[in-house]
Amino acid sequence: MVDILHRIGTTSTPEKVYAALTTVDGLASWWTQETSGDSDVGGILKFRFHGVPMPDGFDMKVLQAEPAERVLWEVVDGPKEWIGTRIVFELKQEDGYTIVLFRHEGWEEPGEFMHHCSTKWATFLMSLKNLTETGKGEPAPHDVRISNWH
Amino acid sequence: MVDILHRIGTTSTPEKVYAALTTVDGLASWWTQETSGDSDVGGILKFRFHGVPMPDGFDMKVLQAEPAERVLWEVVDGPKEWIGTRIVFELKQEDGYTIVLFRHEGWEEPGEFMHHCSTKWATFLMSLKNLTETGKGEPAPHDVRISNWH
Repeated sequence: MVDILHRIGTTSTPEKVYAALTTVDGLASWWTQETSGDSDVGGILKFRFHGVPMPDGFDMKVLQAEPAERVLWEVVDGPKEWIGTRIVFELKQEDGYTIVLFRHEGWEEPGEFMHHCSTKWATFLMSLKNLTETGKGEPAPHDVRISNWH
Repeated sequence: MVDILHRIGTTSTPEKVYAALTTVDGLASWWTQETSGDSDVGGILKFRFHGVPMPDGFDMKVLQAEPAERVLWEVVDGPKEWIGTRIVFELKQEDGYTIVLFRHEGWEEPGEFMHHCSTKWATFLMSLKNLTETGKGEPAPHDVRISNWH
């Protein structure tokens, strides 16, 4: 099993970052505008990305949501490499920043698609940083293009 | 052992990307302006980053340099978490892009510093993409700030 790891810091508050991770409006403002579903614990969030070669979407079950501290999802539908993997966001305060420790855990193989997803997550986490600092993120379809795989 | 993985694609040629990975001028144009040393196989490249909390620098031994295909470095000095790790850039052509598969291999622990370095590598690889596509990268000290750790 291999994991994708990232760390960003935003000058915004843990409460604002938590809202961006646990509301459909928040998620639609930094990851993909096509976000829908139920963001409560036990609910399913649906993320879609039209018009790009891969992936066309992910469904996440919300396993944990501890205000201003931790959010955990399990991937229940999407590309086969993603199904069963888990995504965790851990929040803490340090030096006037809200730090987000991100892990996408449980990949079976470190294949080329995982390399792509790692870089793509970095650009989306920078979008989360921008959203919470300036009010404007870069969610799909206005996301940063990193390669032929979008 | 755990690894950092990334994948980017640039519309530039493998030859231009290879030059950006194997010349002091090229490296200074996307990673850090304070690059010096010997970029031939067996040589030591020195990367420095003044005025930031961490890290203050890395020394890399060039283990492989296969034109337009592959570059491999071993970290011989720097933060203790980096020493002995290896960094590989693999190049290939696909859909009119030069694809860069990047791995920073052999971390002992997936600690918070590794999370930071993963995100930071993503932003520097986007700088490599920008350099090879437009002629202008964002090397340190003009790099993208991702957190309190720079």
